[in-house]
Amino acid sequence: MNTTPFDPKQFRQALGAFTTGVTIVTTRGPDGQDYGLTANSFNSVSIDPPMVLWSINKDSSSAHAFTEGSHFAVHILATDQESLSNRFAKSGADKFSGLDLQRGPCEIPLLEGCSARFQCKTTYQYEGGDHIILVGEVLAFDRFDGAPLVFHSGGYRRLLTTTAQDQESANYGENWLGFLLGRAYYQLQIPIRQQLKAMGMQDQDFELLGILSFSEGRTLDELFQVFEFTGKVLSEDQLAVWLQKDLLTLEDHRVLFTDKGRQLAIQWLAFAKAAEMAALEALSFDEAQQLKLLIGRVIQHTGAELPVHWRKENIWQDNNLWQQSDAIVSTR
Amino acid sequence: MNTTPFDPKQFRQALGAFTTGVTIVTTRGPDGQDYGLTANSFNSVSIDPPMVLWSINKDSSSAHAFTEGSHFAVHILATDQESLSNRFAKSGADKFSGLDLQRGPCEIPLLEGCSARFQCKTTYQYEGGDHIILVGEVLAFDRFDGAPLVFHSGGYRRLLTTTAQDQESANYGENWLGFLLGRAYYQLQIPIRQQLKAMGMQDQDFELLGILSFSEGRTLDELFQVFEFTGKVLSEDQLAVWLQKDLLTLEDHRVLFTDKGRQLAIQWLAFAKAAEMAALEALSFDEAQQLKLLIGRVIQHTGAELPVHWRKENIWQDNNLWQQSDAIVSTR
Repeated sequence: MNTTPFDPKQFRQALGAFTTGVTIVTTRGPDGQDYGLTANSFNSVSIDPPMVLWSINKDSSSAHAFTEGSHFAVHILATDQESLSNRFAKSGADKFSGLDLQRGPCEIPLLEGCSARFQCKTTYQYEGGDHIILVGEVLAFDRFDGAPLVFHSGGYRRLLTTTAQDQESANYGENWLGFLLGRAYYQLQIPIRQQLKAMGMQDQDFELLGILSFSEGRTLDELFQVFEFTGKVLSEDQLAVWLQKDLLTLEDHRVLFTDKGRQLAIQWLAFAKAAEMAALEALSFDEAQQLKLLIGRVIQHTGAELPVHWRKENIWQDNNLWQQSDAIVSTR
Repeated sequence: MNTTPFDPKQFRQALGAFTTGVTIVTTRGPDGQDYGLTANSFNSVSIDPPMVLWSINKDSSSAHAFTEGSHFAVHILATDQESLSNRFAKSGADKFSGLDLQRGPCEIPLLEGCSARFQCKTTYQYEGGDHIILVGEVLAFDRFDGAPLVFHSGGYRRLLTTTAQDQESANYGENWLGFLLGRAYYQLQIPIRQQLKAMGMQDQDFELLGILSFSEGRTLDELFQVFEFTGKVLSEDQLAVWLQKDLLTLEDHRVLFTDKGRQLAIQWLAFAKAAEMAALEALSFDEAQQLKLLIGRVIQHTGAELPVHWRKENIWQDNNLWQQSDAIVSTR
């Protein structure tokens, strides 16, 4: 553990080790204009009297508005406000354009959708090197629900969430990742399968439809490999029936949907999206993103044994059904 | 969005919406004793000159040591320093006992194992309501590796780490939860299947072995239902072979492993655990817990359509193979 010789860039990096939320601080300037900027130098100071502080660079183009103004508002941003944070982090005239604003004391602009908000009267302005430390007495505050936007080591981050209920013990089998993945996977499919069954489809056809909607344009050999990967068997008879029913066609040895087959796939897609939405009701938006990201990382890390054309970077790319699907489904 | 009427407890809760790191600030008192306390009111102030600040409660028993001392050190805690954070958050004479200490200017104590450390000369002491704001010029700093300890809404948190790969855009299909779950599930199975194949097992037998190890003691009907749930088919012929090979036995219409079959299941279990460990290398311990917890919540929320004996609370309970598995596998 050697002490780092002084270097501004390394100093910034070391400061970045301290995790912070992200705030937007706003005020109304003496010129009657709204001013605002993104800051993570916010912190609490005092409970009684209630006080918070933050620091502004003396060179900031909005510094005068805050040092001359009598009030400011601090907005602690929620996890879905990354783009708002970016907007207020840049210099620009139009930071407030198109935003729904409320007004606080002295007409200071109040933003919506944040996770907490403090309306302050500027109490002290203190010397702080290249910054001015602004201490405000909190006149009013709001606490809203929602996960926070977090900053660490120069980038936005998310918090891992855990609840007491989640800590319940499970026996090892139930906690085996393979069990959890498989069970969630099959349970997600239940409503899809029920709906396809109601349309008169057979068990073995669910699988083929689902796999084809990801694998359209593959050769027959590749399609048989996909089935093998899932431990299931695709029979030539079944394929023949789909071809005969004019749901599939073979072009240059590649399996493609006909228009009729594509309609069926679109139907499947609608069921699939609905099933996902129902499953994700169990999670917040942020948790759902985390779940997908973590599974994605497991996928990236496993499957090295797959044939090259099967790897993530080489597959699904010819498939434009899913890419177009939002447009397609919305016109149903 | 109504403004909350003023209440100290609610004010604290609103302040808790701002995520922070956790620091321990230390100094050497005029009495020659070491002083230290946990604080999350730290923040950066200035780059040139390099300055940081934090606030101390005027009522704190160590306040005099910091206001009378000329130097202090700020330690940004790492994710595994929760207990150190707790130790320094309480009043007590023995906070430093047993800790490896280095010494900074004026003999201020420097702690080990943190993620960053700043040695400061006290430059300003400012009035801040019930707190004093201490601004220090940074004389030296250290940045160490390690994930940060994080505080939010009154509790310790951890950050979800994101990688460049995570940020890659994916088309909708790849991001469909069903795809992610299925793909991760099947990829996790690849090494298990390869190992079973190397032992001379056939494709359809992998499935039966895996399912039986979760479903031992089920009736034949229930076992057929499990297969149906996974979209696969269990043939009576296959069962007959397993019975004939003395791997399974039927007792009171329930399917049980023989000793020989159980040895096979234990082998499967060892492969399964190894496959899980390999897959989870992609994640930190916290992230792996989070992944399981989120999938668990999806499982709880879906599958209402399953027969009652299939629901989470009614299944797997007779299965003690997994529960005993740690002991069994470790003796192999």
